[in-house]
Amino acid sequence: MSGWLTASYLVACAERDVAARAAAIASEQSVECPLEAITEQRIRAEIVARVTAIEPAGPGRFRVDVAIAAQTIGANPVQFVNMVFGNASLWDDVQFAGFDLPPEVLALFPGPRHGIAGIRRLLGAPERALTNAAMKPQGLRVPELAAMCRTFALAGVDIVKDDHGIDDQHYSPFAERVRACQAAIAEAVAATGKPALYAPNLIGTPRVLRERARIAREAGVRAVLIAPMLVGLPAFFDLVEEFPDFVYLAHPSFGGARQIAPELLFGRLLRLFGCDAVIFVNVGGRFGYTHATCAALAAGARAPWGVLRPTLPVPAGGMRLERIEELLDFYGPDTMLLIGGNLLIDHARVLERTREFVDRVLAHRFAAGAPARG
Amino acid sequence: MSGWLTASYLVACAERDVAARAAAIASEQSVECPLEAITEQRIRAEIVARVTAIEPAGPGRFRVDVAIAAQTIGANPVQFVNMVFGNASLWDDVQFAGFDLPPEVLALFPGPRHGIAGIRRLLGAPERALTNAAMKPQGLRVPELAAMCRTFALAGVDIVKDDHGIDDQHYSPFAERVRACQAAIAEAVAATGKPALYAPNLIGTPRVLRERARIAREAGVRAVLIAPMLVGLPAFFDLVEEFPDFVYLAHPSFGGARQIAPELLFGRLLRLFGCDAVIFVNVGGRFGYTHATCAALAAGARAPWGVLRPTLPVPAGGMRLERIEELLDFYGPDTMLLIGGNLLIDHARVLERTREFVDRVLAHRFAAGAPARG
Repeated sequence: MSGWLTASYLVACAERDVAARAAAIASEQSVECPLEAITEQRIRAEIVARVTAIEPAGPGRFRVDVAIAAQTIGANPVQFVNMVFGNASLWDDVQFAGFDLPPEVLALFPGPRHGIAGIRRLLGAPERALTNAAMKPQGLRVPELAAMCRTFALAGVDIVKDDHGIDDQHYSPFAERVRACQAAIAEAVAATGKPALYAPNLIGTPRVLRERARIAREAGVRAVLIAPMLVGLPAFFDLVEEFPDFVYLAHPSFGGARQIAPELLFGRLLRLFGCDAVIFVNVGGRFGYTHATCAALAAGARAPWGVLRPTLPVPAGGMRLERIEELLDFYGPDTMLLIGGNLLIDHARVLERTREFVDRVLAHRFAAGAPARG
Repeated sequence: MSGWLTASYLVACAERDVAARAAAIASEQSVECPLEAITEQRIRAEIVARVTAIEPAGPGRFRVDVAIAAQTIGANPVQFVNMVFGNASLWDDVQFAGFDLPPEVLALFPGPRHGIAGIRRLLGAPERALTNAAMKPQGLRVPELAAMCRTFALAGVDIVKDDHGIDDQHYSPFAERVRACQAAIAEAVAATGKPALYAPNLIGTPRVLRERARIAREAGVRAVLIAPMLVGLPAFFDLVEEFPDFVYLAHPSFGGARQIAPELLFGRLLRLFGCDAVIFVNVGGRFGYTHATCAALAAGARAPWGVLRPTLPVPAGGMRLERIEELLDFYGPDTMLLIGGNLLIDHARVLERTREFVDRVLAHRFAAGAPARG
C-alpha cells in the first residue's frame, strides 16, 4: 500500500484562485489540518495528498488532479469514498469528476459478479439489445402485479422489475408479491420457452435487505432491483458479497448527482461497488442529462477496467416506444432498454404495446457507427 | 396509515412552468407514471401524491408543498427517504427543503437515544456550552494519538474525537487505537476528576461497523463519531438500534448538500435517524454556509419535535480560538464547539492552546439575545 490514486475534480473559480482551491482539496481529502501542524516528515511525504495537475475545463472551470495515498484507504471500500469525496462534497464549487486506482486499491472491489455477459447468459441472448419493463403504479395489489408481470413476460420482455416505489406496503407485501410474481414469470417462460427474469425491489436497512434477499432467493429469484445510493453504497457492497448469485440492477433513486458527475456516479462508482446493470435517466426523458453525459456514462460502464466485468447500461426515465431505434443506435447492442409508464398508457393494449417494444428491439439493425460491445 | 405527510421543495423555474414542475414532482414521488395509466379509483384517491401549495420563494424560485400518502411508506424508514426525495433528487432545479410528518410516520423514528440532555449527563455539564477537539492528522501512530487524546482531556475538553479520516490503517489500527485512547482518556479523567469522552470513528460496510462497535463497547467507549451519509442512513439506523448505549456524533463527510437543503439534512434528517450530536460546517470556516443556514440548522436540531430528543449542534470546519465568543453568542449554550487543526498549529503549545479554548468557553457570559436551550 505504498501507491497513490488520482482523484479529479471540476472546480468553478477564477484562475487566480485555482491553485489555492486545489491545495485546499488536497488538504481536505487527506490530513484535513494546516500543514504547519504536521511535524513528522513521514506524514508530509507519505500521507498528505498532492496536487498533480491543474487544467482549464471551460470558462471559469478547472480540472484538478489530486494524488491521494493508498495507505489512507487501507482495505476499506467505504474509506475509499471518504478519501476521494468526503469533505470536498460540502463545497458548492467542487464536483467529483473522476478517479484512477492503483492495482492494490482496485483489488478491494470485485465489481459486478455477472455483468453484461452473465446477464446475457441467464437470458439466452448473446448478442442483441435487451428489454426491461416496470410494474407500475405502486398501489396495485399482488394479483394485479402478478398479472402484469405475466403479461410483460408473455410479450417477450427480458427483465420485469418492480417499480422502485414498491416496497412492503400493505397493498403488496414483499414475500407474497415476490412469490406470486416469480410464479407468474415462471409460468410465462414455460409458455413461451423464452427466458425472462423478475427483479423485485430490495429497500430497507441492512438488516431488512438481508431478510428480503433470503425470501427472494428461496422463491427462486435471480435478479433484484436496488437503489445503491438510497440503501447506501456500503450496505449494497455487503449485500453483493453475501448474495453473489443475484444479478443487481441499480436504480438511480436518491442519487442526486450534482456534486458527483453523473457519468462517474452511475457509470463507474456503481460498477466498482458491484452493479451488474445500471438504470440511469436518459437524455430527452423526464430528467436533464445531455447526450454527452449519457454517452460517457455508458462508455464508463462498459470500458475495460482491470478485472472488473462490464456493467449493462439501462437508459430510462420517461422513454417512449417512438424512440427505440434512436436509442439503440445511440447506445448499441450492449444495452437494455427500460420502458415504464409508456407501455401502460392504453390499459386495454398493454400486451400489444409491450410486444411492439420487444419486436422493434429484435428487428433493429445497428448502424455502422453504433457503439461497440462492452 | 391513512394519513399524508408533506414534503416541501424549492424549485428554480419560470412562473409559467411552476404548476407543471410541481405536478411532475408529485407524480415522480408517488406513482411515477402517467395518470392516464392509472385506472383504479382507489389508487388515484389514496396513493397519487398531491400538490397542496405553491408559493414564491425569491426571484425565479418557488416553494412547492406535496402531500404524500403515508401508506406508500409503510413501516420502512428507508422507503421514507425514497418517497420524499428519491427520483426528484435527480433534477438539478429541485431542492428538498422540508417535511412534516403525521404521527404514524414519525413513530417509525425513535431519533436520538441520548440527545442534548443525555450528553450533558455523561459529561456532568448541565448548563454550559461544551467543547470538542479532533485528533489530527491521520498518519499519526497509536502512541501519538493516545498522547494527544490525553493532552486534550487534561486541558478539559469534553469530547475528544478521531479525525474522520482515521479508519483502520496500518499506522493506527482500530482495535489497538481504541483501547489506547480510551485508556488515555480514563487516565486523564482520573487525574482531573472531570468527565470526558473519547469518540472513535466508525467507518465501513454494515458488517464492519458492527464488528468495530463491539470492539469499542468492550473497550468502555461511550461515544462514537460516524458520517451517516458516508456509511448510509439505513446502516446508521440499524447501528443505533443495535448499539443504543453510544452517543452518536455525526460527521458531515459525503453529505454534499446542494440538493438537500443543509439545514434539512443536518438539522432534521440526521436527528430523525438518531444522531445525538451533529457536526456541520460553520459560517466563516472552510465551507460556504451562511449565517441564516447555520441558524436554521441549529434551530431545527433543537426545536420541539414529537417525542424526539433534541440533537446537539456542533459547528466546525476551520474554527479558530479567536471566534469562540462570537460562536457562543450566535449558537447559545446548547452547543458543542469543535476546534480541530487550530489547536495544533503550535506543536509545543497544544496543551496551553486547548486550555485557552476550554477556559474561554467556561468563562463566557451569554448575551441576553443568545438562542434559548433546546
